[in-house]
Amino acid sequence: MTEAFVLDPRLQADGDIAIDLSLCQVILVNNIEFPWVILVPKIPNLTEITDLNEQDSMLLMQEIRLISKVFLELFKPAKLNIAALGNKVAQLHIHIIARFKDDQAWPQPAFGLARKNYPKDEYSLMIEQIRSALCKK
Amino acid sequence: MTEAFVLDPRLQADGDIAIDLSLCQVILVNNIEFPWVILVPKIPNLTEITDLNEQDSMLLMQEIRLISKVFLELFKPAKLNIAALGNKVAQLHIHIIARFKDDQAWPQPAFGLARKNYPKDEYSLMIEQIRSALCKK
Repeated sequence: MTEAFVLDPRLQADGDIAIDLSLCQVILVNNIEFPWVILVPKIPNLTEITDLNEQDSMLLMQEIRLISKVFLELFKPAKLNIAALGNKVAQLHIHIIARFKDDQAWPQPAFGLARKNYPKDEYSLMIEQIRSALCKK
Repeated sequence: MTEAFVLDPRLQADGDIAIDLSLCQVILVNNIEFPWVILVPKIPNLTEITDLNEQDSMLLMQEIRLISKVFLELFKPAKLNIAALGNKVAQLHIHIIARFKDDQAWPQPAFGLARKNYPKDEYSLMIEQIRSALCKK
């Protein structure tokens, strides 16, 4: 019996699944301070990037680049921050965060700061914007 | 005339080039607190991962995985942290850091902390160990 992929509940608590790509679920982090998504490959028991087979690792790079392009176009950030950390939640997940010179953490990393939820309508609108930009790719 | 790749002096100051791969120079960060390398693609004017062409982005993923495998085997960390931030140094560079549950920053990210140089012999030995492990791949 093939083991099913189950999203770690701590990642699930970060926000809704905004997009479902071939390899990854893409969660929009519910934090109005930064445009921030988390890509989670839908394969069970992954911790490190080396746990992916080579083909899936290439697909991961493609999906990171795809979401990066959407973020660069939509938000025009000073820099994207892309990171696979996982010290707290071991399930392999990749952060993509749009950073701005006037954001609350610049030039430090955005991890570990207090988060502030979007107003509900604004969160839905963000998901729609990201989906719509993605459809044009 | 083709523009040449020049390593940003701030990355150069992080440590010596331990390995020269097809795409990336690999710097061993001179910080005894964490086994830490920085991969820098040898192509001028890169800032984001999307600035690479598709083929080079695949090569970057291969080299990230190669060094990750070496780090996992050599150091047996609790987790690898892999990150392309670049808020301070825009030249595209990817950190790979071996993290341990008893390191000084766990479970927080390792960025931005005070660094402590290796004793000179120990630094050379680290480079030799990494090169040697890489040759067996």
